[in-house]
Amino acid sequence: MEKKRIYMDYAATTPIKKEVVDAMMPYLTEHFGNPSSVHGFGRDVKKVIDESRDKIAKAVNAKPEEIFFTGGGSESDNMAIKGIAFAYKDKGNHIITSKIEHHAVLHTCEYLEKNHGFEVTYLDVDKDGIISLEELRAAIKDNTVLITIMQANNEIGTVQPVKEIAQIASEKGVFFHTDAVQALGNIEIDVKDLGVDLMSFTAHKIYGPKGIGALYMRKGIKLHPLIHGGSQERKKRAGTENVAGIVAFAKAVELATKDVAGHAKEQSQLRDHLIDSVLSRIPYARLNGHRQKRLPGNANFCFEFIEGEAILLSLDLLGVAASSGSACTSGSLDPSHVLMALGLPHEIAHGSLRLTIGDMTTKEDIDFVVDNLEKIVVRLRELSPLYDKFVREESQHV
Amino acid sequence: MEKKRIYMDYAATTPIKKEVVDAMMPYLTEHFGNPSSVHGFGRDVKKVIDESRDKIAKAVNAKPEEIFFTGGGSESDNMAIKGIAFAYKDKGNHIITSKIEHHAVLHTCEYLEKNHGFEVTYLDVDKDGIISLEELRAAIKDNTVLITIMQANNEIGTVQPVKEIAQIASEKGVFFHTDAVQALGNIEIDVKDLGVDLMSFTAHKIYGPKGIGALYMRKGIKLHPLIHGGSQERKKRAGTENVAGIVAFAKAVELATKDVAGHAKEQSQLRDHLIDSVLSRIPYARLNGHRQKRLPGNANFCFEFIEGEAILLSLDLLGVAASSGSACTSGSLDPSHVLMALGLPHEIAHGSLRLTIGDMTTKEDIDFVVDNLEKIVVRLRELSPLYDKFVREESQHV
Repeated sequence: MEKKRIYMDYAATTPIKKEVVDAMMPYLTEHFGNPSSVHGFGRDVKKVIDESRDKIAKAVNAKPEEIFFTGGGSESDNMAIKGIAFAYKDKGNHIITSKIEHHAVLHTCEYLEKNHGFEVTYLDVDKDGIISLEELRAAIKDNTVLITIMQANNEIGTVQPVKEIAQIASEKGVFFHTDAVQALGNIEIDVKDLGVDLMSFTAHKIYGPKGIGALYMRKGIKLHPLIHGGSQERKKRAGTENVAGIVAFAKAVELATKDVAGHAKEQSQLRDHLIDSVLSRIPYARLNGHRQKRLPGNANFCFEFIEGEAILLSLDLLGVAASSGSACTSGSLDPSHVLMALGLPHEIAHGSLRLTIGDMTTKEDIDFVVDNLEKIVVRLRELSPLYDKFVREESQHV
Repeated sequence: MEKKRIYMDYAATTPIKKEVVDAMMPYLTEHFGNPSSVHGFGRDVKKVIDESRDKIAKAVNAKPEEIFFTGGGSESDNMAIKGIAFAYKDKGNHIITSKIEHHAVLHTCEYLEKNHGFEVTYLDVDKDGIISLEELRAAIKDNTVLITIMQANNEIGTVQPVKEIAQIASEKGVFFHTDAVQALGNIEIDVKDLGVDLMSFTAHKIYGPKGIGALYMRKGIKLHPLIHGGSQERKKRAGTENVAGIVAFAKAVELATKDVAGHAKEQSQLRDHLIDSVLSRIPYARLNGHRQKRLPGNANFCFEFIEGEAILLSLDLLGVAASSGSACTSGSLDPSHVLMALGLPHEIAHGSLRLTIGDMTTKEDIDFVVDNLEKIVVRLRELSPLYDKFVREESQHV
């Protein structure tokens, strides 16, 4: 029997859809010109970049000239944060973010703090991972230039009140950037309605290729480019355009935003089945992140008395791909900064497991995973001195 | 009859080789995992990134851990220059470069000068585009931290004495970065023998895809990352790796460096045929850049009394793709900063044409282009008031 392979790590990256590969192929083969060239080979590809930009802009209700292509979400975050910080340094040197941001945001803020004279406020979150709007409002000072708070968290899936944050930022005359890498395709995004100033996107979380992303930047905002050089992307991001990547990204966005509400409903049903099955069948399990205000494909659990890594390895042996947190921090022995920010004790944060589902996930996949997860947790607890101690103490109480 | 399409703009970008597309395809389809993931899907692709890094390192005689993947040549240049400048700011704030660098270097230096308190010396070049080693030596001061001078120029093809520059930099304890985007595959590159500290590469100039490049950085050098975030690329360049791009890049490097000397010999013969044909058949034409110390595929001419753009458009109508300078500055009405730095008068620099040949170029292509170029130049001069004036003045001298 061939080993089952079940992928439940869609938040780390997604397979590329066939339509997306088909769309990009001609730009990896016959249409190879440089978009900046003034001859036929160049015009061929310049046109398709414009069309791709239009498609992406339309999908999030932006103007085409407000979309800047980048090499991915991390670059978009760096471009937004460093770009605004350096460009408006004379106005102020204070940035506000949250403790549960992606490292592309957190480490960028820490870098500016440590090396370039900026001051950063890291907002706490509540037990579900949501920031307090009152605390945000109170944190804004005369020298605050930028608020950067993600739309949806990559580990626990919690969705922030982005529209309300934008409202506060706008009242106070502060720029607001949000990392929407996990949100795109899962939550309706209308940049005008949300009122955000800058927003980061990437293709490989929405069934597109790795190495291509975008930054939405509201018209009228200036920033210092992260990559200086040629005049590509209206002089905001130099370098020969990744034409095939751009075409693929536009196709992925088109597919992912065709019916966000329908997609979210379907995914949420599967996710709820997953969450309900785990919580009802496995004792001493808790769900991390907000029960309702969460990404439709995200489930994140803590299983007391055991290590997340051990669960992962056991699942991997069965061909099931999951994560113990962000893919970007793997290899680290520290527990997730996100789970710690929720107020979880160190030893519980260590026992976390993220299962993220996507377009190819079936109910059968979920049932297979939960069946096996149940057995794995029992087995690992049998080996756990912590669990042993707990059971002995419990029995004494009876 | 189908219109001929002749591509003579290989310095702008190259078609992707079939072997390269074949190598990358599995990583756009079945092997889609995130290299940072600790499950089977992740391990699949982590391994291939390591193998790709090994191949590229080997091709330029670097250690694998000295190769950092980026989104392309411009990003590599920015990463090197800003990264070193910010990391060693306490040591000094003076940078030396040349007047004919690619804009990814020039504009980065100008940015640091204007916004971050750096001081930059822009070295002159001689009439062939070569810097003076004496001037370089004299320009180094106690506060000099970085020299950045390209290995080969993208417009005029002139090759700099990189090994000698590295020697001087090393004597003076200054870091040396070189943009080798045009050099890779055309000149033998051995980073240890050359003695450079940092070197920029890109895939799309060597028959690989756009959107992927690398920075060589000698072991022991620290720099501030351009893109902060996850711990990819040994914490020097965050963001999910462009796996397919990396695999393609490695294949392209492998093919391009298999026989650099043989390739260069072949290309030079074709190039010399092109140069000799143009100079012998078209009057008042001059070759820009050094006659011998130049890239094997580069020819760059000025045709007095006419505009480069007009030649380009005429060639384009015939299906011939050429350039009037760097693709990155197209759309600009200013003459090339490179040609101006050679000391060419404004009106002559405006009449430049870059023809760059590559692996698919034949002698027949060249003859077709020169035949037509000859006619185009005659026709454009007939329409040129400058030429008319010149002819009338000449006839009076007789």
